[in-house]
Amino acid sequence: MASQQTRPARGMRDFLPEDVRRRDYVIGVVAAVYQRYGFEPLETPALENIETLTGKYGEEGNKLIFKVLRRGEHESSGETDLALRYDLTVPLARVVAEYRGKLPRFFKRYQIQAVWRADRPARGRFREFYQCDVDAIGSKSMVVEAELCAAVSDVLLALGFAAFDIKVNHRAVLTGLLSATGIPLPFHGTALVAIDKLDKIGRDGVRRELVERGIGEPAADAALDIFKDGVTIEQVRGALTGRVEALAGLDDVRQIFELSQATAAGAHLRFDPSLARGLSYYTGAIMEIAVADLPGSLGGGGRYDGLIGMFSGEDVPACGFSLGLERILVVMAERGMFPADVQKPSADVLVALFDEQTVTGALRLAGELRAAGLRVEVYPEPDKLGKQMKYAAGKGIPFAAILGGDEIAAGQVTIKNLGTGEQVTLDRAAAASHVLERRAPSARLRASGASARQAESRAPSPGEEP
Amino acid sequence: MASQQTRPARGMRDFLPEDVRRRDYVIGVVAAVYQRYGFEPLETPALENIETLTGKYGEEGNKLIFKVLRRGEHESSGETDLALRYDLTVPLARVVAEYRGKLPRFFKRYQIQAVWRADRPARGRFREFYQCDVDAIGSKSMVVEAELCAAVSDVLLALGFAAFDIKVNHRAVLTGLLSATGIPLPFHGTALVAIDKLDKIGRDGVRRELVERGIGEPAADAALDIFKDGVTIEQVRGALTGRVEALAGLDDVRQIFELSQATAAGAHLRFDPSLARGLSYYTGAIMEIAVADLPGSLGGGGRYDGLIGMFSGEDVPACGFSLGLERILVVMAERGMFPADVQKPSADVLVALFDEQTVTGALRLAGELRAAGLRVEVYPEPDKLGKQMKYAAGKGIPFAAILGGDEIAAGQVTIKNLGTGEQVTLDRAAAASHVLERRAPSARLRASGASARQAESRAPSPGEEP
Repeated sequence: MASQQTRPARGMRDFLPEDVRRRDYVIGVVAAVYQRYGFEPLETPALENIETLTGKYGEEGNKLIFKVLRRGEHESSGETDLALRYDLTVPLARVVAEYRGKLPRFFKRYQIQAVWRADRPARGRFREFYQCDVDAIGSKSMVVEAELCAAVSDVLLALGFAAFDIKVNHRAVLTGLLSATGIPLPFHGTALVAIDKLDKIGRDGVRRELVERGIGEPAADAALDIFKDGVTIEQVRGALTGRVEALAGLDDVRQIFELSQATAAGAHLRFDPSLARGLSYYTGAIMEIAVADLPGSLGGGGRYDGLIGMFSGEDVPACGFSLGLERILVVMAERGMFPADVQKPSADVLVALFDEQTVTGALRLAGELRAAGLRVEVYPEPDKLGKQMKYAAGKGIPFAAILGGDEIAAGQVTIKNLGTGEQVTLDRAAAASHVLERRAPSARLRASGASARQAESRAPSPGEEP
Repeated sequence: MASQQTRPARGMRDFLPEDVRRRDYVIGVVAAVYQRYGFEPLETPALENIETLTGKYGEEGNKLIFKVLRRGEHESSGETDLALRYDLTVPLARVVAEYRGKLPRFFKRYQIQAVWRADRPARGRFREFYQCDVDAIGSKSMVVEAELCAAVSDVLLALGFAAFDIKVNHRAVLTGLLSATGIPLPFHGTALVAIDKLDKIGRDGVRRELVERGIGEPAADAALDIFKDGVTIEQVRGALTGRVEALAGLDDVRQIFELSQATAAGAHLRFDPSLARGLSYYTGAIMEIAVADLPGSLGGGGRYDGLIGMFSGEDVPACGFSLGLERILVVMAERGMFPADVQKPSADVLVALFDEQTVTGALRLAGELRAAGLRVEVYPEPDKLGKQMKYAAGKGIPFAAILGGDEIAAGQVTIKNLGTGEQVTLDRAAAASHVLERRAPSARLRASGASARQAESRAPSPGEEP
């Protein structure tokens, strides 16, 4: 039969074992920290009814939604009824509206799942990618924002990020400041695009661009006076005199800073009155994580007190943070931030197959070693021993167990250390502990340690070390 | 704004925290056992190019594939270019064809991911469901089949299933027997549908149905003589005299039984010459798991030595097993098979908020308790203490920490056991160990135990117990 295209679809990726291990390590750390903050896991379907998603992400977002063709007799109509999850916030809002009576008054959930966007693929930008979301539903208190910033800071610190900023702003402050500088409301969006380039094109460049975009010179100057690095909450307060909503928003920001002095986030918060965040559903505080030398952000979030009401008809306060798994992985790989023991061989021991007569004995031995807690691969067919040892060494498997007819008769087995070449023949009953005692320390540590992703559940593990 | 439909799409499900914990528990056990057999994790994208999937699942399967509309200017054409993963075997075949040079000679992978089928939803049948697949690539040896049956048996035993059968057959045996009974090749399919009803409608019923389906009475009688409960390999060998391929297949079956005497699968294998398995890509041994009192199966698998060649042009031997997560969960829930500690409260301690003045102190305390390894929820707004205690009790949180102004000044905190009502005021530094010592034994066990799903990775966990 003819061979087919074997690459994954455009913008999608296959994750080979070493990729999965790195991803699972990060997901494990994220989940463990979120659990330590009292957040509980939630999962929602990949496919949503199309009307659940449309109208939530703005016009540009709508275009990036993957839509699923109706099936059966409707297939030829070209109509669509389902769409792939575009983020984890809109499904959460739907879930809260649907199960409000079953959920606690303050529902704190984390959700780590894939989302799909038909964006043009680019370096670090994929069409299937994971978001690590954490949201708290049910309170308008700034304790929520402070706790979310603390949780996200603890995640980044646990992963080994030391230098990061959490930029904080408030939608009402942003709108208030733009109005105060004299920029008319319809020009707010275009003005922000220019202001966002301060780092890149400098003060003069932004001034020129503001004017080109139709903003008067006095307004442009006023904007540049307030949207600048290091501006303080007090300075902004002065610029907002008389603007009640904006001042209330600014007081939220002040509270977040004050409360965060008691948490891991305190040292990382930075007030940035030009921070806008793209999504249209934000209504209050907004946050974004910046890491030195990294264009773009590792994640962001904010308060969206109106989104759940779009589903339930009743407004429910909500605030959340989303970390981008892929960006975290890219930075960690570039900077060599993964612990050495994230990667490990597929097995602790290869059980070699001597000849056809000893296969059953070898399978029995493999079962004994597994029952003792070892990860064991059985070479699937009798072959030259040298070739089997080479296979094990190539996979980084540290030990081989060799079992000939004489050894089976004597109740013994030969264990070879493929690193040192050392080889000992010992009683079957002693084989597992021989290997367990000689495994790398990191492997022993892993075997006895609580895993993070699944700190919530526990599976039996025979022979687990104390 | 008008409220919207908030239920998940037809045939899809939301997983609230208690659901996710149960699912993660099972996934954890499955992954841990597969790792103990030397299998490595693989993940593939949810979306595949449509031609990757079409032509692999038969005509009926093709109709059940969710197809994704082309985007942008092509959207209005109604054309589709992508499709949602329908199983985990075809993506594996594509991956092996694509990365053959990077993968070990014997590639052993497990993959636990969602698949999507536009089936009519029914009890226990969903349009998004998880498969737990385990496959070994690269060897024609029956050691592969034996190891797969052993791994799957160990999974079921670890989950608490005691009474299960792994039915074993071989495609060539099935074809050979049907031909030997005199049923012409074009009638093999329809004959199997009738034979499959033996348990339900009995010998006479099947005989009648075979005849109705156009099979002659002598052939029907011959079929009923061989396709019966408890038929042995030796009896079948007699019926296959002179049929070389079928006899070779039967020898594979014999070997699987012989090798499995050395493994956990031995006591569970059952030869069933009428087992057919629906998927068209199987070429050799086929297996299916039956559990007493459960219609349908918990999973199945087989050898598919031709599938990878459809992608690479070069045949690569392969064999695998797939467990259905949802069916396992249904049976475990019905039979109360989940360990008690799979479900646990969202936090160990609720930090209460006394008044506005003590919020920062409460956040600092929460940070201290978390650093000691406790899971801590902070009540997000100052409120009546009784209401806060009621909230904690309602969520099953076992302890509350209360911190008034006096206590902050004295460096103390009050810890209330919400089960016993016992309340003690102690030094801040002693608070975490006070709670850690009094947590439920199962919680302590969980905190120190290795999790299965993530036995491969390890996240830092401060204050982890020895």
